[in-house]
Amino acid sequence: MGNNNDKLVKSITSRDTDFAQWYTDVCKKAELMDYTDAKGFIIYRPYGYAIWENIQQYMDKEFKKTGHENVYMPLLIPESLFMKEAEHVEGFAPETAIVTIGGKEELSERLIIRPTSEVLFCDHYSKVVESYRDLPKKYNQWCSVVRWEKTTRPFLRGSEFLWQEGHTIHATEQEARDEVLGMLEIYRKTGSDLLAIPFVTGRKTDKEKFAGAEETYTIEALMHDGKALQSGTTHYFGTGFAEAFHITFLDKDNTLKPVHQTSWGVSTRLIGAIIMVHGDDSGLVLPPYVAPTQIIVTPIQQNKEGVMEASQALVSELQNAGYRVKLDDSDKSPGWKFAEAEMKGIPLRIEIGPRDLEQGECVIVRRVDREKTKLKLTEVAMQIPKMLQEIHEIMLENARKNVEENTRVAKSYDEFQSIIQEKAGYVRMMWCGDRACEDKIKEDTAASARCIPFQQQHHSDTCPVCGKKATTEVYFAKAY
Amino acid sequence: MGNNNDKLVKSITSRDTDFAQWYTDVCKKAELMDYTDAKGFIIYRPYGYAIWENIQQYMDKEFKKTGHENVYMPLLIPESLFMKEAEHVEGFAPETAIVTIGGKEELSERLIIRPTSEVLFCDHYSKVVESYRDLPKKYNQWCSVVRWEKTTRPFLRGSEFLWQEGHTIHATEQEARDEVLGMLEIYRKTGSDLLAIPFVTGRKTDKEKFAGAEETYTIEALMHDGKALQSGTTHYFGTGFAEAFHITFLDKDNTLKPVHQTSWGVSTRLIGAIIMVHGDDSGLVLPPYVAPTQIIVTPIQQNKEGVMEASQALVSELQNAGYRVKLDDSDKSPGWKFAEAEMKGIPLRIEIGPRDLEQGECVIVRRVDREKTKLKLTEVAMQIPKMLQEIHEIMLENARKNVEENTRVAKSYDEFQSIIQEKAGYVRMMWCGDRACEDKIKEDTAASARCIPFQQQHHSDTCPVCGKKATTEVYFAKAY
Repeated sequence: MGNNNDKLVKSITSRDTDFAQWYTDVCKKAELMDYTDAKGFIIYRPYGYAIWENIQQYMDKEFKKTGHENVYMPLLIPESLFMKEAEHVEGFAPETAIVTIGGKEELSERLIIRPTSEVLFCDHYSKVVESYRDLPKKYNQWCSVVRWEKTTRPFLRGSEFLWQEGHTIHATEQEARDEVLGMLEIYRKTGSDLLAIPFVTGRKTDKEKFAGAEETYTIEALMHDGKALQSGTTHYFGTGFAEAFHITFLDKDNTLKPVHQTSWGVSTRLIGAIIMVHGDDSGLVLPPYVAPTQIIVTPIQQNKEGVMEASQALVSELQNAGYRVKLDDSDKSPGWKFAEAEMKGIPLRIEIGPRDLEQGECVIVRRVDREKTKLKLTEVAMQIPKMLQEIHEIMLENARKNVEENTRVAKSYDEFQSIIQEKAGYVRMMWCGDRACEDKIKEDTAASARCIPFQQQHHSDTCPVCGKKATTEVYFAKAY
Repeated sequence: MGNNNDKLVKSITSRDTDFAQWYTDVCKKAELMDYTDAKGFIIYRPYGYAIWENIQQYMDKEFKKTGHENVYMPLLIPESLFMKEAEHVEGFAPETAIVTIGGKEELSERLIIRPTSEVLFCDHYSKVVESYRDLPKKYNQWCSVVRWEKTTRPFLRGSEFLWQEGHTIHATEQEARDEVLGMLEIYRKTGSDLLAIPFVTGRKTDKEKFAGAEETYTIEALMHDGKALQSGTTHYFGTGFAEAFHITFLDKDNTLKPVHQTSWGVSTRLIGAIIMVHGDDSGLVLPPYVAPTQIIVTPIQQNKEGVMEASQALVSELQNAGYRVKLDDSDKSPGWKFAEAEMKGIPLRIEIGPRDLEQGECVIVRRVDREKTKLKLTEVAMQIPKMLQEIHEIMLENARKNVEENTRVAKSYDEFQSIIQEKAGYVRMMWCGDRACEDKIKEDTAASARCIPFQQQHHSDTCPVCGKKATTEVYFAKAY
């Protein structure tokens, strides 16, 4: 690799020197996003947005397979409607953006840009549901939401972000609870099958749950720096919203009942997770099934006879076989091209030069570990599915190892504090169930309860913080 | 058909009695949309949104095939940025919604909810474009926009609507002009191949063009009531925005030049066009390629042996073959089911009853003309592609005939006025090119210049309004 390569690579901070700076460098240099003059509002550039489109495509198919339908609710919520469910208001009111002027006139009622759309779905459901025959309603919407944030970071926390929000209503508690766990499972599977991210799944503590929810479930990912990232949540609302919004139905037994409700969402935060789980000092490393470009073909000495033709022929063949392939026929040096392809995290790079051509061969390089393979040109298309799957598995396994090596058990509060300060990562510890202990941990260490894992282990009989009887094992970590 | 059927059908106004009421009845009864408490903001219900998803899917593929990339720009525009291009501001400022409060505090600079995103794209382009190597940039975004409207109608005019907005910049005028006409051709093709709507295409007069554009091109559709609907537009901006926003590039000749710019968009208005071009007194009639459900299978006497099994088997077979199929296994009467399927405009209805089954047959009914065919169950899947294509062609041909029969030529202004008042439809008439004549026509008749058609005909040497030399043939009509 030449000087140009060094120049491009050196333009980003080393990951272990300054993880935060490395992250924003990668966001910018890989051309995922750009800043705007409105603080906290970013531009999703083509390469960043294409990752989101691939996530959408995968998830939307899963949602539809499980009987969900897409809708679109208004962007703006009348303030009086927004105020109907008390806990919900308390959670979201401080971070709303409010429209006070429309068509040059002061509005008689202020309109809130949706920070989430529970109240809109509730209002609509209350109008269209009459009998058990109308249930369940399983709606989802893809949109952007606005939450006024003081400190913002690309993809992780912004004043506007893109997401999907599912909102469902059911005749029975059991059905609603099944929905909440079913959607969590789809989220988990999106991690393991698409993003190559092994999520820890479980329930949120009351302190950490969604405003207005009875229970919140979560998928948590561990970043390279040992901090956790809440990557998606599903909520069981019970009948709280239904009662506030009068969403009732006439059941088979001829009595009027409130519906049981859920909501669930993932956002463009997942792009942040991909960057921070997989990226390295050369830039982005994209899991093959979510990568906008899966394969880049780079001709070497492209003016030599046959090189460009062979490269183009291979690109066409791979495109026709359904892969996302690009040809880099720019006049940049090979070293520069390689560095760019690495910065953008393209899973496979195929090099075709005059000497390879003489042998009817090419060189294939994996982004994840730079492993090189020589292959007959005629065999490339056949080998690609296996190579992409191998890369996916390596990336998932690397991420799994990172979680494993950075998950520790604490039996005393001293032990807990030293792990959190020195090593970061997840700390599994018993807990009495009291909010006071959670608050103390947060104050002492900045760590929070990430989740109560489904797979409970027993480490001690008492809560290491207060000494009372321990009821629950919790994953704690510092988090984004 | 039974009483239930009559009841459902009678619940909508007859199309020729009150077209406006018929339209809103269909929007509601076919469950395309619902109103909300915020005036002009509607809910896109699953059936309505699914039509939009099918339009998106078709068009997005066409955009990508022609080298366009999707992005996402912020929802909110700082007021100072919005004010940068004078004509543009004048056109949009009166209908903006403005955010003045964020996170409980008065904002130091007001933020405008995008009514369109030209200024955001310009600002971004000015930062990322340096040399001719960076051109063209061909970006598109799918989003919602807000324009404060006094009178609103579902899909046709709303304070919020869904759309796509393409924004491209080019090194040369020729390339930008090719883009503007190329995208118009994709829009026209979307009409003929997907929506079964024959658009009249041409250029807008200066009075009717987009705020800030040098030229605007349009696809115009003729509704059943003889009014025109502007269904999509493409704009050539020249270098106006580039100069206001300093989007320049170093060309091959080593001089700094402004880019040539375009934008183009279609919106959920297309759903309104589908309803008003194809619908009838029984409700919606959907073109088969855009219909969320293409085929509904209705078992008759579904408790009789084998009926439900045969219906389910057929549904599975057709689903596996890639069609959008539903089974109506509800406990409603067949008459009610038929009426519902007609209200929703489902192109093909398949009835399977015990007597049909004995013969191994079923009955297939086309929504568009209620033509019935008996078919062997084993032959259905094979016949479906042909049947869908035939329906598409019939619908396109019906719409073409409606345009033909309602397009008239006026050689005098008297003739023009009597056609517009008595018959509506398009009137082709010569024009001198003066804004004054356009204004007079609008004042006298409420008709406007819909477009200057690409295929010019010559009807008179002078402008029938003012008597001066005629330069151009124009399509005039009353419009939505």
